[in-house]
Amino acid sequence: MKLKRGIFHFNKDIFVSGFAAVAGEKEAAGPLRGKFDEIFKGKLFGEKSYEKAESKMQSFAVKKAMEKADVTAKEVDAIFAGDILNQCISTNYGLRELNIPFLGLYGACSTMAESILMACIFLDSGHVKTTISVTSSHFCAAERQFRFPLEYGGQRPLTSQWTATAAGALVLKTAKTSSNIIVRAAVAGKIVDYGVKDINNMGAAMAPAAADTIERFFKETNTLSTDYDLILTGDLGAVGSMLLRDLMDKKGYPLKGRHNDCGIMLYDKAEQDVHSGGSGPGCSAAVLCADILEQLKNKQLRKVIFVATGALMSIITNQQGETIPSVAHLVYFEKMD
Amino acid sequence: MKLKRGIFHFNKDIFVSGFAAVAGEKEAAGPLRGKFDEIFKGKLFGEKSYEKAESKMQSFAVKKAMEKADVTAKEVDAIFAGDILNQCISTNYGLRELNIPFLGLYGACSTMAESILMACIFLDSGHVKTTISVTSSHFCAAERQFRFPLEYGGQRPLTSQWTATAAGALVLKTAKTSSNIIVRAAVAGKIVDYGVKDINNMGAAMAPAAADTIERFFKETNTLSTDYDLILTGDLGAVGSMLLRDLMDKKGYPLKGRHNDCGIMLYDKAEQDVHSGGSGPGCSAAVLCADILEQLKNKQLRKVIFVATGALMSIITNQQGETIPSVAHLVYFEKMD
Repeated sequence: MKLKRGIFHFNKDIFVSGFAAVAGEKEAAGPLRGKFDEIFKGKLFGEKSYEKAESKMQSFAVKKAMEKADVTAKEVDAIFAGDILNQCISTNYGLRELNIPFLGLYGACSTMAESILMACIFLDSGHVKTTISVTSSHFCAAERQFRFPLEYGGQRPLTSQWTATAAGALVLKTAKTSSNIIVRAAVAGKIVDYGVKDINNMGAAMAPAAADTIERFFKETNTLSTDYDLILTGDLGAVGSMLLRDLMDKKGYPLKGRHNDCGIMLYDKAEQDVHSGGSGPGCSAAVLCADILEQLKNKQLRKVIFVATGALMSIITNQQGETIPSVAHLVYFEKMD
Repeated sequence: MKLKRGIFHFNKDIFVSGFAAVAGEKEAAGPLRGKFDEIFKGKLFGEKSYEKAESKMQSFAVKKAMEKADVTAKEVDAIFAGDILNQCISTNYGLRELNIPFLGLYGACSTMAESILMACIFLDSGHVKTTISVTSSHFCAAERQFRFPLEYGGQRPLTSQWTATAAGALVLKTAKTSSNIIVRAAVAGKIVDYGVKDINNMGAAMAPAAADTIERFFKETNTLSTDYDLILTGDLGAVGSMLLRDLMDKKGYPLKGRHNDCGIMLYDKAEQDVHSGGSGPGCSAAVLCADILEQLKNKQLRKVIFVATGALMSIITNQQGETIPSVAHLVYFEKMD
């Protein structure tokens, strides 16, 4: 087998066995209303802090995905997870009671694709049979960590995105499951930095990483956007999506109406005042698990490329005048008959 | 093959192909003096911030390990890396120019073992042939992020540990290499929380995670500490090491003089005033790559269990009164004739 660097075609059939998505009230009132497994009301969900609230949401998503996949925590061989809070605390605290071998990741908003990619390699290696991939984000926890205290009421520029209060979890298995959705391939992203410095325009910083990863996949598989039903990016939002389509045109791989973006899909642009769209690891995780996998299950979609993008900066690097490096990991889902 | 949950015995021979360790002046003046590939003098290493200095160190370690393994960046199929700065910036910025498929991890001070475990599963799956595992830490960057500005001159209690200014990088291959050091097995840790809240006593918080992982490995492999030359923990320091040995006695798997700890090995207890010992992801990475792998290469050691431990809290969780969950990942190295 000739290896294509960073492109993984799985030898085993890796089945989507169960998936769950949870969201806050704002997210659950958007275009995907009625599709979430649980709606968390208010901001704290009965917890004492936003961070603990996010942990609760992530934990709930995992338990719900296990329930829907009909597996217990004891049957899960490994869990792949991370989030964007400092030291990934929503993950570390949210999952600590599960007693499942734990592999922590940091991919910023690319975490859902990274965690699925990781799980697939582990499953394909034969060392595990059942895995969970999960991530989350919480608007209030992210806002006070990355931007301003909520009470400050900072104004957001039109290029900025709204961190989704949401989580998504996915159970994968090498044993055949009735969903008949198979993860066929994945691409590990490279760090890409086009020199964008504006932390209120993450979409622009991340679009080049998405373009790089999608181009690599098309080239190596000798396919085009028209070979797929949907090319779904993580959370480029409106501005980043426009840039991605431009970049793909220039690379000679136009997306030709096959592209959509989780950050655009999650909120109602006219009604919900989120400017350029949604963001946060929970955004793409929740859109994937609430909507896209359901559409695959129901054969409304057959071939979906999921590309979650992450901006790899911190407040400190921004204050030090640094540009924003980004990464985009890709996972390819196929629905079988 | 019966799967043992979270315990991975690799089917392929996974060879240590090259390794490099770099350190700051204090670390290079300790018991491991003369063993580092490069000593970084001062605190900033010609950069404008501690964070950029750490990135430089991590990048240097990777390049040196590639040079010693005689591989170019183009020949590396994937790099597994992370650190403890918020959003893993030393990694994201340190590695951005390499153009290698990048998989970001967050395991706090357990990162070196986690990154080796990940690389081994990828190698064992056949999807990659050459990988790099790397991590780093910098005393000044960590201190101002987790504790106080350096200028404040905060007093450190005797149970506290000193974040090492150091980095270690390791090239692994499935092709045979002259070192003849093989990674035979690995164990993915579970999140363990014994209720310790004192962030100036990380060793105590992490010891139960190390004990859990080591016990699982001994049980599943039906071995005892006496079957190995060295059981090397990441950075439990003096206090945590004592607790680990007590816990292992109680579990019926006494370590019987086979145990040492990177946090203890890196500094001179009498001369260097680091209290309970070293810590930080760079501590265990540098001790492994400066000393232990060299001893394996020279047949001074034959069978080494490397268990890096990570405390999974943040400043925020500590301020919110939370306990400190921990994780410990294990990697087993064997020197062949």
